[in-house]
Amino acid sequence: MKIFDEIESEVQSYARSFPRVFNRAQGVHMWDEEGNQYLDFLAGAGTLNYGHNNPKFKDALINYIQNDGISHGLDMHTKAKGEFLETFNERILKPRGMEYVVQFTGPTGTNAVEAAMKIARNVTGQSNIVTFTNGFHGVSLGSLAATGNSHHRNAAGVSLNGVHRMPYDGYLGEDIDTTAYLDKVLSDSSSGINSPAAVIVETVQGEGGINAASVEWLQNLQTVCRKHGILLIVDDIQAGCGRTGDYFSFEEAGIEPDIITLSKSLGGYGLPFAVVLMKPEIDQWKPGEHNGTFRGNNLAFVTAKEALDHYWADDTFSKEIKRKGEYIGQRLEAIASQYGEGNFTAKGRGMFRGINCVNGELASKITKKCFQSNLIIETSGADDHIVKFLCPLIISDEDLKKGIDIVEQAIKEVCAKEDSIPEEYDYFDQSHNTNAA
Amino acid sequence: MKIFDEIESEVQSYARSFPRVFNRAQGVHMWDEEGNQYLDFLAGAGTLNYGHNNPKFKDALINYIQNDGISHGLDMHTKAKGEFLETFNERILKPRGMEYVVQFTGPTGTNAVEAAMKIARNVTGQSNIVTFTNGFHGVSLGSLAATGNSHHRNAAGVSLNGVHRMPYDGYLGEDIDTTAYLDKVLSDSSSGINSPAAVIVETVQGEGGINAASVEWLQNLQTVCRKHGILLIVDDIQAGCGRTGDYFSFEEAGIEPDIITLSKSLGGYGLPFAVVLMKPEIDQWKPGEHNGTFRGNNLAFVTAKEALDHYWADDTFSKEIKRKGEYIGQRLEAIASQYGEGNFTAKGRGMFRGINCVNGELASKITKKCFQSNLIIETSGADDHIVKFLCPLIISDEDLKKGIDIVEQAIKEVCAKEDSIPEEYDYFDQSHNTNAA
Amino acid sequence: MKIFDEIESEVQSYARSFPRVFNRAQGVHMWDEEGNQYLDFLAGAGTLNYGHNNPKFKDALINYIQNDGISHGLDMHTKAKGEFLETFNERILKPRGMEYVVQFTGPTGTNAVEAAMKIARNVTGQSNIVTFTNGFHGVSLGSLAATGNSHHRNAAGVSLNGVHRMPYDGYLGEDIDTTAYLDKVLSDSSSGINSPAAVIVETVQGEGGINAASVEWLQNLQTVCRKHGILLIVDDIQAGCGRTGDYFSFEEAGIEPDIITLSKSLGGYGLPFAVVLMKPEIDQWKPGEHNGTFRGNNLAFVTAKEALDHYWADDTFSKEIKRKGEYIGQRLEAIASQYGEGNFTAKGRGMFRGINCVNGELASKITKKCFQSNLIIETSGADDHIVKFLCPLIISDEDLKKGIDIVEQAIKEVCAKEDSIPEEYDYFDQSHNTNAA
Amino acid sequence: MKIFDEIESEVQSYARSFPRVFNRAQGVHMWDEEGNQYLDFLAGAGTLNYGHNNPKFKDALINYIQNDGISHGLDMHTKAKGEFLETFNERILKPRGMEYVVQFTGPTGTNAVEAAMKIARNVTGQSNIVTFTNGFHGVSLGSLAATGNSHHRNAAGVSLNGVHRMPYDGYLGEDIDTTAYLDKVLSDSSSGINSPAAVIVETVQGEGGINAASVEWLQNLQTVCRKHGILLIVDDIQAGCGRTGDYFSFEEAGIEPDIITLSKSLGGYGLPFAVVLMKPEIDQWKPGEHNGTFRGNNLAFVTAKEALDHYWADDTFSKEIKRKGEYIGQRLEAIASQYGEGNFTAKGRGMFRGINCVNGELASKITKKCFQSNLIIETSGADDHIVKFLCPLIISDEDLKKGIDIVEQAIKEVCAKEDSIPEEYDYFDQSHNTNAA
Repeated sequence: MKIFDEIESEVQSYARSFPRVFNRAQGVHMWDEEGNQYLDFLAGAGTLNYGHNNPKFKDALINYIQNDGISHGLDMHTKAKGEFLETFNERILKPRGMEYVVQFTGPTGTNAVEAAMKIARNVTGQSNIVTFTNGFHGVSLGSLAATGNSHHRNAAGVSLNGVHRMPYDGYLGEDIDTTAYLDKVLSDSSSGINSPAAVIVETVQGEGGINAASVEWLQNLQTVCRKHGILLIVDDIQAGCGRTGDYFSFEEAGIEPDIITLSKSLGGYGLPFAVVLMKPEIDQWKPGEHNGTFRGNNLAFVTAKEALDHYWADDTFSKEIKRKGEYIGQRLEAIASQYGEGNFTAKGRGMFRGINCVNGELASKITKKCFQSNLIIETSGADDHIVKFLCPLIISDEDLKKGIDIVEQAIKEVCAKEDSIPEEYDYFDQSHNTNAA
Repeated sequence: MKIFDEIESEVQSYARSFPRVFNRAQGVHMWDEEGNQYLDFLAGAGTLNYGHNNPKFKDALINYIQNDGISHGLDMHTKAKGEFLETFNERILKPRGMEYVVQFTGPTGTNAVEAAMKIARNVTGQSNIVTFTNGFHGVSLGSLAATGNSHHRNAAGVSLNGVHRMPYDGYLGEDIDTTAYLDKVLSDSSSGINSPAAVIVETVQGEGGINAASVEWLQNLQTVCRKHGILLIVDDIQAGCGRTGDYFSFEEAGIEPDIITLSKSLGGYGLPFAVVLMKPEIDQWKPGEHNGTFRGNNLAFVTAKEALDHYWADDTFSKEIKRKGEYIGQRLEAIASQYGEGNFTAKGRGMFRGINCVNGELASKITKKCFQSNLIIETSGADDHIVKFLCPLIISDEDLKKGIDIVEQAIKEVCAKEDSIPEEYDYFDQSHNTNAA
Repeated sequence: MKIFDEIESEVQSYARSFPRVFNRAQGVHMWDEEGNQYLDFLAGAGTLNYGHNNPKFKDALINYIQNDGISHGLDMHTKAKGEFLETFNERILKPRGMEYVVQFTGPTGTNAVEAAMKIARNVTGQSNIVTFTNGFHGVSLGSLAATGNSHHRNAAGVSLNGVHRMPYDGYLGEDIDTTAYLDKVLSDSSSGINSPAAVIVETVQGEGGINAASVEWLQNLQTVCRKHGILLIVDDIQAGCGRTGDYFSFEEAGIEPDIITLSKSLGGYGLPFAVVLMKPEIDQWKPGEHNGTFRGNNLAFVTAKEALDHYWADDTFSKEIKRKGEYIGQRLEAIASQYGEGNFTAKGRGMFRGINCVNGELASKITKKCFQSNLIIETSGADDHIVKFLCPLIISDEDLKKGIDIVEQAIKEVCAKEDSIPEEYDYFDQSHNTNAA
Repeated sequence: MKIFDEIESEVQSYARSFPRVFNRAQGVHMWDEEGNQYLDFLAGAGTLNYGHNNPKFKDALINYIQNDGISHGLDMHTKAKGEFLETFNERILKPRGMEYVVQFTGPTGTNAVEAAMKIARNVTGQSNIVTFTNGFHGVSLGSLAATGNSHHRNAAGVSLNGVHRMPYDGYLGEDIDTTAYLDKVLSDSSSGINSPAAVIVETVQGEGGINAASVEWLQNLQTVCRKHGILLIVDDIQAGCGRTGDYFSFEEAGIEPDIITLSKSLGGYGLPFAVVLMKPEIDQWKPGEHNGTFRGNNLAFVTAKEALDHYWADDTFSKEIKRKGEYIGQRLEAIASQYGEGNFTAKGRGMFRGINCVNGELASKITKKCFQSNLIIETSGADDHIVKFLCPLIISDEDLKKGIDIVEQAIKEVCAKEDSIPEEYDYFDQSHNTNAA
């Protein structure tokens, strides 16, 4: 369809990687206008944990529309919102002993992050927020300051202030616990790092390259936050909603963030939806201080409730994710060790995984070849050097194997044509800095 | 439902003015759980120009869902997106001789504003953007800098930079053309106002108090922009999509903005949706520079296309809006002259109107009384001193009369109880500044 | 001397206008290495109100050095500092009924402005400071934000935040009291101008073009500040120390600034020196919060004390300045009306005067021609279009007449060669903004 | 003198530590009004490297004043300036093979830093500047952003932007070369650290706690800068002018900074003076872009020239500094090992030394006790926990021994009264972060 070339902006991105016009989707599959079927290992960048157009939610959505349920109600109370809140409380919060209030922000992840950073700053009276290398939190100006990617940052057009960047888990090498560095600058009154309102962190950095923080690091991070009286914000927009195996990605670490952002798969059906969860004492908002026309997307309330009822009433789904996650992990480890001359590595946890191919061009060749085999899969990381596995959580074992097989075959073929696979550069190997004559 | 008290954030706003649980809506009416019917003169703060759950669009939406049309596709090409673009081009752009490209931003108004400001800064290499007193453009940090309201600004928690504020049309009194002031500071190399990337303006300021700029002022503003080589951004999120009588609110002024933001009623059915229109030479985005998970809400594409086909194929709808707008204007003029001791004034244009009651408490009493008569209507303005009329454009003459009658009766009753109605203070009456002993 | 070409930075400025190597100065005269004498109507840009190397102060300075008085003592108490404080209190503060504390900042005007803005922000807890079009307050980053000149601003290399710019007296035409505009935005909660800590203002804008605010405007400005609880900072670095006839330039207006900055002629002998005066309740500094190696220049204390004793013990000097100021004013009025085709105007007050020649090139030709007649005189204003008269206050009537005669002759000659003198453009004449086809 | 209590601001700092009124100074001694003599181990915070009122310079200064040499000449060429430039070129730049241009900034260190940061930003078009933990560069807003000390930073009243803070040499423990971390973030396009204009660094951090960077670290820092095309600014205001043994503190490392700031002892006699040295290709200033009334303090030119002629004509002085520096180092090592229960450490290099007493209260007791023995000595560091040795470089061996003996005796006495001396906390000892129940 040439209309896209004619009048859609150059900003389009995924449309370039997958140059088809799609018109139908179901479960783990999408179909283009010519009827070709694709296996989807991108899953709306983590938005389609329950697959496309999940049939378990569809009827509820259609019924709601059919019966003239409220489609748009600003932030007014509606039956759909009430039922979502009840269900979220019963299925998610209470069983985990979590006492949080729910803020419905504008229905985008970046809006939830903006709200989270705002309330943290307001409650503490500090403007500085600690963020991490390779973090991604959205591209509206408030969130963009927290985002590490220079492609997005350079588009700001104004200075991005109010954050201080710290090294993520592992950034300074395996031996250095970077939370100790954070602890030190916060304890040092002439460190030059202003006393922060909060730390904002992803437990697994998706866009940043499928970097999974260790349980110990997350615990230490919370310890440092508590010690210095600063708030801990977990941005669980991509890693949450079951992606790592538990509903929240931080459950394994046993930490209790002060503020949590959720979006993407929260709505269940791919509909725009985002919330901020915060401990009750943090909920010091004045009425309407953070507002937005579409906060409270009622159609998403309906499907979100269905998702909770169908998948989170017990731990069956969670166990399945973990089982499949293990399988993916083993396959990726095997692939990484077999190909890439020992330079590839497997990354991530749960069903949030990737293969570090060191080199962006190489990774791009791999995903392109996958698409020739009708597999939709993308890269991530600073240099797009990670092949990112983000399939729907509801995927069957058969489709999961099929998808990974396609990737393996693509890697095999691409690597066969390469002269050599580059090694990752170790900045902390001191020998490179010699000032030799 | 006590769940709202228990776990919904204190940030809730409209839910406080209209403390009911709504569960159905159709056209100009909403119903609460107990079956009470309400006439809606708020219309999703301008999102429901075509009324609630417009029956003309409903089937298309249900069919799309029923047939597993793409619900979520990131920014990939979909049939629904293609059809929306075709229709928008044929029904809106071409007939007006407008050549623009369309950027699908995150589906919120504020995200469209963020994108508009970003691209303006990037294309020009300047960071400063001129904004106006009483403007409202959203509350994510980039947009918030442009927003005038201190209630929202004070919640930022960080400094809001990159804008320079200028007086809107009429702000310095009727005799001063504030675009001449803008022209002067831009011509004066020691004015201290950095050379701007763009001006961002609402043709009618909704949240700012239903301030309608004159045609001449808008033309002069464009002239000053062209003279100094700066971009003109019209934020038509609330005033556009027919609210003032034409599809775009600036058509009457005959100006040609470089960038236009649309959202709210664009989707037709109240679904989250937002776009930036920009002249082709401005579309210098690199792929994915401004992104977001829910950019391109396919369900909204479907209903947006329906809205264009049903209402904008010819000028019938536009004429109807203008006719009803005239009626509202006359009624409000009459009310303002009859009540308020000569201190009330009617404001706005098209079906974007209000009555300035000078005093926020007074206006609040009026809208509260209206709600007792089952009319949903809100205030706006710096002190919430404007009673804002924002009913669906598809309202029948009968319902329109009924709603205004309710307001008139409320004003009558409220004013009867007031000792006196305060006058608006004239800052430019020099006598107040005397330094007398 | 070619050493200047070889290793002095390109940033040099006055050295370009007056390309001589000077090696002696006395009173109103400077001599170059070849023995040529120059009459100085620049006077160190207002630093040499008492003339070069005033013989009345010289012995005290030499004696102090001879006797090993403290040359550098950080901010420790020294006898010289104590004596300066005593004298300043007795000669300046007490006779005017002014109760202020004195802060010794780094010995530059810009450092005093930085300190003034800092303490205003700290005391009020607000970051925003209102500044005026065409203001000049220095070029370190804090002061530079307040400075209007784009030549200096563009060199910042980072965004200049924390100020809001308002139109100075007369900027919107003679009929508009711009303090009413300030009052309005401060009263309007959605004006978009954050509640400010302070207003910083020059009573006569030197670099901005010898714009003298009216007494009434200054009074109204104070009234608006008091009304809104914001601090009034008068930057009296150039206009103070007698330049306008009184010791402080605001005495005529009878206002009482909360904070005052002084520098330039404060030291008397041209030595680096700057102070901030503030009302005692504003002096909430913690020890050393604003510091600097050279705060408290003891040599300058010595000469500053001498200047106060010799010139400010009674009102003789003040009367003389006013008398000479009147003379300058009359001469400039006469010149402006005689030359320039009616487009020149005389500006300023006291001995702080200028002629607006509308056009920068023209003004530059005039000052160049003056230098050919051994008169040192400079331009100011956004386009360097003002010929600025800033001779030492101690100038004799004869030398004053001689200098003005040189300028008059230069104007006469330059104007004779011009085809026509451009008129000043009136932005508030609406006819220019027509959108005609 | 009660005048200080009455009208000098609370901001006074050193005056509190040394509550005397001083009135005479010579060499390494100061005298108060009552005739008491003090040995000065503070030396104007590094401004009096040549001692107080150095008799070798005094006559030249008095003669210059006596003969009406230019005292204030803005930035015009003067004989005194020319001679200073010639001498600086011959004595300092040429013998070291350094090709730099000299910019005369406002006569304060902070103004030189402002200018250095500005030109770096302008030349590169980047706004970000990398600064280090515990750095001190001044307190005007531009410099303050680079300064680490929260006491000063918190007084800003506005956000301090445009810098990114990195760990200084040793900050992450001895095993981590923090330049490798810098290299990594600069190489990583999603590190979130904007591409910088420059790095600004002190080779020995004075205010930050006498932290001396290693030669290897400085070399690696230069290597990383060159690799990424960013400018290296050495702020040599306190460490330069001979303090570490060479004229510039970086000579030992053999690096070639792109920009160098000098002030403090540059003028020789304690008079306000500051310059920026920059490589010729960096000198892209436009005329007057960075200006200031007192840039080019002619009296300081005179004494600065004398200092260069008397002390830097050959390497005698340099050798003496190194010899005395060794002596100080040995004494401090001995003291640190003898007292403080093994928790004290000696720091610094050349005659820029200190003893880390771990605890600020302890260090303060020591310096107070020293003052009782008529020794003026101060603390530095985040917690004022370092006793700082900064005596004039021209000190005699006898006076040097005497001063150190006083400190040793004070430490002995103070430690005798302490129950125990706290150990320094090691943040990188992981055991402290355990999340144990």
